[in-house]
Amino acid sequence: MLVDVLGYLGIAVFAASGALIGVRKRLDLFGVCVVGITTGIGGGIIRDILLGIHPPTSLDQWPNLAVAFASSLLVFIAHPVMNRVWRGVLLFDAFGMGLFASTGASIALDHGGSSLSACLIGATTAVAGGVIRDILVNEVPLLLRRDLYAVPALLGSASVAVVDGLGWSANFGLVIGTVAATGLRILALWRRWNLPIASRLPAED
Amino acid sequence: MLVDVLGYLGIAVFAASGALIGVRKRLDLFGVCVVGITTGIGGGIIRDILLGIHPPTSLDQWPNLAVAFASSLLVFIAHPVMNRVWRGVLLFDAFGMGLFASTGASIALDHGGSSLSACLIGATTAVAGGVIRDILVNEVPLLLRRDLYAVPALLGSASVAVVDGLGWSANFGLVIGTVAATGLRILALWRRWNLPIASRLPAED
Amino acid sequence: MLVDVLGYLGIAVFAASGALIGVRKRLDLFGVCVVGITTGIGGGIIRDILLGIHPPTSLDQWPNLAVAFASSLLVFIAHPVMNRVWRGVLLFDAFGMGLFASTGASIALDHGGSSLSACLIGATTAVAGGVIRDILVNEVPLLLRRDLYAVPALLGSASVAVVDGLGWSANFGLVIGTVAATGLRILALWRRWNLPIASRLPAED
Repeated sequence: MLVDVLGYLGIAVFAASGALIGVRKRLDLFGVCVVGITTGIGGGIIRDILLGIHPPTSLDQWPNLAVAFASSLLVFIAHPVMNRVWRGVLLFDAFGMGLFASTGASIALDHGGSSLSACLIGATTAVAGGVIRDILVNEVPLLLRRDLYAVPALLGSASVAVVDGLGWSANFGLVIGTVAATGLRILALWRRWNLPIASRLPAED
Repeated sequence: MLVDVLGYLGIAVFAASGALIGVRKRLDLFGVCVVGITTGIGGGIIRDILLGIHPPTSLDQWPNLAVAFASSLLVFIAHPVMNRVWRGVLLFDAFGMGLFASTGASIALDHGGSSLSACLIGATTAVAGGVIRDILVNEVPLLLRRDLYAVPALLGSASVAVVDGLGWSANFGLVIGTVAATGLRILALWRRWNLPIASRLPAED
Repeated sequence: MLVDVLGYLGIAVFAASGALIGVRKRLDLFGVCVVGITTGIGGGIIRDILLGIHPPTSLDQWPNLAVAFASSLLVFIAHPVMNRVWRGVLLFDAFGMGLFASTGASIALDHGGSSLSACLIGATTAVAGGVIRDILVNEVPLLLRRDLYAVPALLGSASVAVVDGLGWSANFGLVIGTVAATGLRILALWRRWNLPIASRLPAED
């Protein structure tokens, strides 16, 4: 139950981040909703395609879609307020990312995936929505820019796989994974951590 | 039978729209054909991936591919003429979109999808080809710009789902869905209807 | 056995090409690895999605990923040297492409695909990694620019389908397909062959 509620919260926050970028790109109501909904449910759809869940849950049942749509609509109407609370949204986003990474890993294990596929599919669930969002609005995905985002996602899904490998409770894995991913992401935002960039190419000068 | 013929017509028109954009982007013969074919059969392939039809019909059997290829080749050779009849092509495109939306919804229902998945997968079938086309040539998808395109597609696939929910004939649903989607799209083109854009962001000024 | 080794070599070279472009785009360590790994294993993942292999092999088992990661890391560290040997890398890339085209076609046939799907899925396996790479870094895919790349891939996968249709040995098909695709690609690089571009559009002037 709690996991479901947290899952909807994650979808809502991701959808809001997509819708806000749509507003900034001057898209119309429909475009804003498409970017918002895609960002909110895109990761889960790609997870289901990789695992062979047909049709993907978010397309087959209404709650995920309804949450993403409501969140996008809210942003379209109330975006000036959203702009002001963007730092707060980043915290929600970190929480949603952690939850998607751990639930994605857990679902992959449930469908017979290996530990490796739990790590990779969990992290993919967490980051894919944002990548789709950035490709749709024609920007180099934020994921590839200087911003520690996917490493926390991998940490979260790997935690779930480790807990599963040790034979401990799946719910414990979900909690550990979500806390680890969200915590590292917030630390990275707070400390402005980034991964290194390769030394300058002589050819570019 | 009629549905098959109309389906090929839809593929041909979508492929032509992709190929024409490829010509305008100065792609070579192969690039023009790739963009044309992808636009023509891409929506159906994504529909088959979402529904778990392996391998996708358009990759497994030759007619869809042959139609898309012939259409792209024709545009490559005869593109100056195509440019002049672009308004006519828009009408064909509206018809193809309507047909893809309703046949996509119908196929989703046949594969055990819910009414919601019929709506969403039908509309996805209708718009995905164009989105792939625009991503391939590195533009913000037309779908996200001010242009009423996806709303008619959703209307068409929803009509099929409603007719199915009422227990009426599937063929009747196909006709109603195609007419509704095509009609609304043509109305939107004719009246230059658009959805609203969010009020200007103060932060941008 | 030999095919496995050659497969890893192909993944390594594709990953290196992606990582090198990531370095040139000034991505951080993670971004370079993501582009590199995606380029190396992306084609195989899309092949598995099209064929209904869940979860995709490259996500479920570690060797492919490890090879792509090691190759990307190497490029991140040693990219000035890589720049100097880029012509040599193009030869490896041609070889990797040929191998992916023929193994992809062979796997499609093993999974009950038609000859057509062997051709198309084989060629897709060979070119998809590069297309994903170019979309990730926000460029018009090289595939669509003036460069004879996908035609050799199609030749290679078609060769495998023809050998299979004649009832000859699958290993023979793999060798013929790889040699044909790699050979035509190297010829095209050497002779600077390109496909024709459509005559200039009057509307653009």
